[in-house]
Amino acid sequence: MALRTAFTDLFSIEHPIALAPMGGYAGGELAAAVSEGGGLGLVGGGRGHQDWLDRELAIVSDRTTKPWGVGFLSWAIDVDAVEQALSRHPSAVMLSFGDPRPFVRPVREAGVPLIIQVTDLDEARQAVDLDADVIVAQGAEAGGHGGSPGRSTFSFVPVVADLAAPTPVLAAGGIADGRGLAAALALGAAGALIGTRFQATVETLADTSVTKAIIEGSGEDTERSTVLDIARGVPWPSRYPARAIRHPFVERWHGREAQLAVDDDAQRAYQRGIGSGELPALPIWASDAIDLITDVRSATDLVGDLAAEAAATLARLRS
Amino acid sequence: MALRTAFTDLFSIEHPIALAPMGGYAGGELAAAVSEGGGLGLVGGGRGHQDWLDRELAIVSDRTTKPWGVGFLSWAIDVDAVEQALSRHPSAVMLSFGDPRPFVRPVREAGVPLIIQVTDLDEARQAVDLDADVIVAQGAEAGGHGGSPGRSTFSFVPVVADLAAPTPVLAAGGIADGRGLAAALALGAAGALIGTRFQATVETLADTSVTKAIIEGSGEDTERSTVLDIARGVPWPSRYPARAIRHPFVERWHGREAQLAVDDDAQRAYQRGIGSGELPALPIWASDAIDLITDVRSATDLVGDLAAEAAATLARLRS
Repeated sequence: MALRTAFTDLFSIEHPIALAPMGGYAGGELAAAVSEGGGLGLVGGGRGHQDWLDRELAIVSDRTTKPWGVGFLSWAIDVDAVEQALSRHPSAVMLSFGDPRPFVRPVREAGVPLIIQVTDLDEARQAVDLDADVIVAQGAEAGGHGGSPGRSTFSFVPVVADLAAPTPVLAAGGIADGRGLAAALALGAAGALIGTRFQATVETLADTSVTKAIIEGSGEDTERSTVLDIARGVPWPSRYPARAIRHPFVERWHGREAQLAVDDDAQRAYQRGIGSGELPALPIWASDAIDLITDVRSATDLVGDLAAEAAATLARLRS
Repeated sequence: MALRTAFTDLFSIEHPIALAPMGGYAGGELAAAVSEGGGLGLVGGGRGHQDWLDRELAIVSDRTTKPWGVGFLSWAIDVDAVEQALSRHPSAVMLSFGDPRPFVRPVREAGVPLIIQVTDLDEARQAVDLDADVIVAQGAEAGGHGGSPGRSTFSFVPVVADLAAPTPVLAAGGIADGRGLAAALALGAAGALIGTRFQATVETLADTSVTKAIIEGSGEDTERSTVLDIARGVPWPSRYPARAIRHPFVERWHGREAQLAVDDDAQRAYQRGIGSGELPALPIWASDAIDLITDVRSATDLVGDLAAEAAATLARLRS
């Protein structure tokens, strides 16, 4: 049984699964592997670093002839980054977190489908008004950055699906197995955008220590915070905290974010802690659903496995 | 298409839907209406007030010959409350929030199925060890009280389903329509425990102002806090905050809960605010999914409508 939806039809792909464009982790190899598996691989263009993009977009276009795309952080990029990506002929551009409006026109002019990720109703209404081709409804279950205080995938997806119809909506946040994909479809989504599960693949750019922490962890070991962005000196808008595996520096500064932001000593202490090995070198962004992630697979196989498990789940439910 | 599951088999009921035993709101009439509709109505026994229980259990046993049950707050009751309920021959006893162990034995001795609600993995493991007949996995989307920081329904349900198998698991939190019920089944649940949606019925004990606020509200108007319990002088364990529609007193004290707890003047100001009409008389507990609640129905009809919408959703997905 194939899971054919408005999303698979739009891109002429086999499975209703998109790779979350995790900045720095979803490189060309991972995106290509997902596309080769029948999903839509999205390179994590993040803040639009030119060299990184050049390298990873060359890799993805070299490794697959199937549709793939690229995602950016709207708050962090300029139009040049989008133009640079468009010159590689992606099948989709995805915009997340912040005002997407400055980037809509070049994407439209290139005739490329536009995917906009939203975290609350205001963002969802804006994405509908901008006539996005696909809207991603992201719940606060998601690993990495998300809305604050955040909707939950379970209740946000049907609300956005109703608001956006007939535009296809992808569910994001907390989806790590085929049951989650089947549930997303039941909630009215046309597919799932999946991030953390793809960190446990052979193609991710994540360090093996990240993959290991995800496989061993539980959602109860994760927490949402802006502390690590402040400590790292990364100017994420404070309305987008990030879910990461519990971290000693977050424990120390939780609830005192405003104070941390102006405390140079504390920020230096963070850097020293990393230098000495007392603190992990990088935040480990992770979903509330990591309990369900127990092995490392090829991303190409994983796409098919997730789709098959979702199809089997739906088949079981009809009997 | 009937949605037959291990839960419907256990109670010989038609639909995999249970009424959340909302303390003070899920009275005998509402529970009976849900049972008459083919679900499992659970009277909200709450803290076990004897007079309230006497009255509402008389009503439910008078209004339906179908299976019904009663739920209690484990942190708040004594064994007498459970014995009192058991004397009315319920088909189920449900225990939520706190240590269920003191109440297991009388329920077992009466030969009545035991339902235990859990909000994290430790509670889930305990419920499995106690050999609960049904486990309710509650996400932080839920209206009213829940775990802290709380798992999400989307990721917690499959984790508990795996842990508890073959014991049937109900999904709770964020489920307000048939799509949600279908998604719960896809995630591995044997049904859904639904609360807030049943506040918008003709049989609820909730004031019409509560129902109106739920119908008009969005999940984005809700927030989780312990402030209202502290202000009301209700000794809920602080590990169980409650989701309610945004409230001026919560805005004022959010983040200063410990201070509020020892500030008699502030607690008196809360009472005065209610007296003068400046503050709402009662917290309006509400789910993150209230966007999906748009009308008042008979609870009996609602059970069938939810089940039919879930079945139609699953039928649509197989084509």
